[in-house]
Amino acid sequence: MTSSFTTAIGAGPSGYSLPLSPSGGSAALTPPPWHFAGEVIMVDYRVDPAVAAAFLPPELDAGTDPGAAAAVFAQWQWCSASGAELAVPDRCRFGEFLILLGCSHRGRPLARCPYAWVDQPVPMLRGWVQGMPKQLGVIHQTMPVRVGEAGPRLGAPGGFTGTASVHGQRIVTATVNVSGPIAEPPPLHTVPLVHTRMFPAWLPGEQPLSQLVTSKVTGVEFTEIWAGQASLEIFDGIDADLGRLRPVEVGRGYVFGYAETLCHGEPLEPGGNQ
Amino acid sequence: MTSSFTTAIGAGPSGYSLPLSPSGGSAALTPPPWHFAGEVIMVDYRVDPAVAAAFLPPELDAGTDPGAAAAVFAQWQWCSASGAELAVPDRCRFGEFLILLGCSHRGRPLARCPYAWVDQPVPMLRGWVQGMPKQLGVIHQTMPVRVGEAGPRLGAPGGFTGTASVHGQRIVTATVNVSGPIAEPPPLHTVPLVHTRMFPAWLPGEQPLSQLVTSKVTGVEFTEIWAGQASLEIFDGIDADLGRLRPVEVGRGYVFGYAETLCHGEPLEPGGNQ
Amino acid sequence: MTSSFTTAIGAGPSGYSLPLSPSGGSAALTPPPWHFAGEVIMVDYRVDPAVAAAFLPPELDAGTDPGAAAAVFAQWQWCSASGAELAVPDRCRFGEFLILLGCSHRGRPLARCPYAWVDQPVPMLRGWVQGMPKQLGVIHQTMPVRVGEAGPRLGAPGGFTGTASVHGQRIVTATVNVSGPIAEPPPLHTVPLVHTRMFPAWLPGEQPLSQLVTSKVTGVEFTEIWAGQASLEIFDGIDADLGRLRPVEVGRGYVFGYAETLCHGEPLEPGGNQ
Amino acid sequence: MTSSFTTAIGAGPSGYSLPLSPSGGSAALTPPPWHFAGEVIMVDYRVDPAVAAAFLPPELDAGTDPGAAAAVFAQWQWCSASGAELAVPDRCRFGEFLILLGCSHRGRPLARCPYAWVDQPVPMLRGWVQGMPKQLGVIHQTMPVRVGEAGPRLGAPGGFTGTASVHGQRIVTATVNVSGPIAEPPPLHTVPLVHTRMFPAWLPGEQPLSQLVTSKVTGVEFTEIWAGQASLEIFDGIDADLGRLRPVEVGRGYVFGYAETLCHGEPLEPGGNQ
Repeated sequence: MTSSFTTAIGAGPSGYSLPLSPSGGSAALTPPPWHFAGEVIMVDYRVDPAVAAAFLPPELDAGTDPGAAAAVFAQWQWCSASGAELAVPDRCRFGEFLILLGCSHRGRPLARCPYAWVDQPVPMLRGWVQGMPKQLGVIHQTMPVRVGEAGPRLGAPGGFTGTASVHGQRIVTATVNVSGPIAEPPPLHTVPLVHTRMFPAWLPGEQPLSQLVTSKVTGVEFTEIWAGQASLEIFDGIDADLGRLRPVEVGRGYVFGYAETLCHGEPLEPGGNQ
Repeated sequence: MTSSFTTAIGAGPSGYSLPLSPSGGSAALTPPPWHFAGEVIMVDYRVDPAVAAAFLPPELDAGTDPGAAAAVFAQWQWCSASGAELAVPDRCRFGEFLILLGCSHRGRPLARCPYAWVDQPVPMLRGWVQGMPKQLGVIHQTMPVRVGEAGPRLGAPGGFTGTASVHGQRIVTATVNVSGPIAEPPPLHTVPLVHTRMFPAWLPGEQPLSQLVTSKVTGVEFTEIWAGQASLEIFDGIDADLGRLRPVEVGRGYVFGYAETLCHGEPLEPGGNQ
Repeated sequence: MTSSFTTAIGAGPSGYSLPLSPSGGSAALTPPPWHFAGEVIMVDYRVDPAVAAAFLPPELDAGTDPGAAAAVFAQWQWCSASGAELAVPDRCRFGEFLILLGCSHRGRPLARCPYAWVDQPVPMLRGWVQGMPKQLGVIHQTMPVRVGEAGPRLGAPGGFTGTASVHGQRIVTATVNVSGPIAEPPPLHTVPLVHTRMFPAWLPGEQPLSQLVTSKVTGVEFTEIWAGQASLEIFDGIDADLGRLRPVEVGRGYVFGYAETLCHGEPLEPGGNQ
Repeated sequence: MTSSFTTAIGAGPSGYSLPLSPSGGSAALTPPPWHFAGEVIMVDYRVDPAVAAAFLPPELDAGTDPGAAAAVFAQWQWCSASGAELAVPDRCRFGEFLILLGCSHRGRPLARCPYAWVDQPVPMLRGWVQGMPKQLGVIHQTMPVRVGEAGPRLGAPGGFTGTASVHGQRIVTATVNVSGPIAEPPPLHTVPLVHTRMFPAWLPGEQPLSQLVTSKVTGVEFTEIWAGQASLEIFDGIDADLGRLRPVEVGRGYVFGYAETLCHGEPLEPGGNQ
């Protein structure tokens, strides 16, 4: 596969990412685009607007609805353009939990992801390339079933729970009891994400790379979206800053399938901000 | 919940299984019945009939189709009668890979499970109570998707792969390319399983408990069953005996959803064989 | 290796435990004896004596020091008589956390283990054969170092922490700051353990196997034992009964190496209690 | 703790790495220096010199001993300057397997690490900051014991094995039978590592950051080093390029304790190569 993202470094070993190798085939990450399809449990909630503001870089503001937030669980399947990972299920599946904060840039509505956890290393590293602050955690979700009594049925009322833990401590529990389908996706799931691409300093006197970017996404597709009452707890055991994003109010919950193709990044301010 | 399986041992701590505790609530296992619903990838295949025979206890024979075998992957969701586990997704989901051998007892068609692996400890221990030889492994499956390009669509032609590994070594890879629905479930998925309930000797001179049992199952439900061409590799890296169950011929593959409720065991020979 | 524990079941597949196979080599468990060597962090503490009593079966009493308890972390290496597992480090190492309660049987001092967790499936299953209620958890310990600054030095004052988590929730944190060596091992580490060997009921009307046993141990060896101040927290997030064993008083802490060979079980009351 | 590596980005959230947060305390990585102490199993071996050359960037050459290589397993404990991680053993321990290739830069002897795997996410991410191509794997080592029969004794002849697996497949097995202490450390463990710090391209038209660096290390300390015969297998199941680094000759094996403090990076060519 030819990609503008495949890196050739002189005559030496190559790859889109480390590890570099003679054929380029050892790279931990394949170059974009990457296709994703997942089953999502999502809860709208509100945080203290002053806390949300403290998580935003100076280039962003709180937008028209300060304190709007969401907790999102997903069980994903992914593949590169070639689809090769689908034949290696050890590689193509992962779980994710992330928090979204509503924000805006010069009037453009966006979402900021202050925290994200995944349960596989490749999506974690891929997150860092994009500026998405993914760490490794343990993520679990109740899934819909097609037959039998061991779970809520697909496309029917029922209860779903998501949990995430880090370093042996629970960080979040969310429940959604869906009662019927709705027409529109949750608002924070429809605006672009804005990330800080960051590469930490390592050489004496060096400044870290730090750059605000959004992501170019295509092929967005939703299944029918079911909605209903929700509950949400966020715990501060491992991180006091995370605990400050606990809900001051919990809104509606959603369960749905979602797909997208992630193509590349875009500078938030064209021509600038490096 | 009252169950004939809840154990009260005199005035002391109680539970259906270890650990025993004052309320009985610490038991690793809840008493049956247990509900299961899962997404299955299955491959019919044939082993050397002499090898299959060497895996059967003397009370069983090879039946009408010696060498008939199947490799079965499943991603399960389960709960006790109360459904409580569905609200704790850390507990209600597991993956499984198992091998089935066709056999019979006095003309009654049965299936023998010589090997099974799951990725959670509770189903592993529950297996030993039933006589199912479950060990801990790492199980992965390609899953159908409802939207997008990151996988085969639910209810459509496409390719699925299952893998399992133990102690850091691959033991099996199976692929199924489904081309259309069929009317009947795979034969080895419709006969009762016959297990050896076994509790190893620990006291000097003791004989192990060893007892042939089948399982009482209700609520069996299949989704539409898709079938097509399959491939299957079984590796002997960790266990030479396992390697002897490698395919001499690979048959049809299947992808489907399946549910059942597991109620209790039944002695293979009523009134006997203890 | 010949062992009185190797099981031959007629002409069929064999093994000390499930899975049974033609050569007997697939068994999850090797027959005893098993050698163990580990690095231990231990904290003496006291529980409410009424709670301790509620964890004892009627055949046992609280002994001369009701409420005496200990929390024990260990990083183990183990092997069968052949030593074969030492060449497969995926198999020969595991971490453990357990609680001990002082008790007695007709004046004989013993220890009861109401809860134990290990991080590998083979020690878990082996525990059930002995009647030790081992479940799967995540166990971590600070280890002594031989060089450098990344930890307390072996055989020197310093701080050690043990943690255990189950289903993504912390169940215990213990810290020990050792200040010097002592002459005698911790009392609860020197008395025999008394377990309830239990095999749950599965057939209608069946009574579970339930049998009080102690263990025959040889080759006990301690390194120098360092002791000092300790702290201990036990959490009830996953299990209210476990939470009742939280400390009402915390005593001394210990850090040491320990080895033993576990040979077989012994009925608590010879000729009886089956 | 004040560190020149702590990042303050304007008035917004801060941290040495992602995730950025109001206090800076959520960062996945603490700033250097980092202290390490570990137990090492190492095997000297030789690869095809033409293969080794294909893994070197054009700025480096094969040096005076083309084809010199080593396989290194380590069980590490680490902490930041504050030592805080030692009280959270969930965070301070990890296992590692890496390969080293001898090389040189303008006559200066160096070692190149083409592949490395660790079993915890923080050391993996920290590797990428330094240019060390760490991926997530499963690493196991036989450990020396202080008492008993379940392993080789510390400071005595005996056998040690290291294994690593990735995506459920074994990538390496190494064994060392140490027979006595030696005076000098293994040569490839005494030269600086030279890494390619790389941050993949994400914006259209962007070139990846790619920069050759060495690491500034202090506080190097070895225990007594035991040496003896060794064996080594490297498998190509998951990666054909990795398989090309299999041994054409296996040399001596070593077992020892090692400590260092990792301070910061240094450009390979001062003032250049960005």
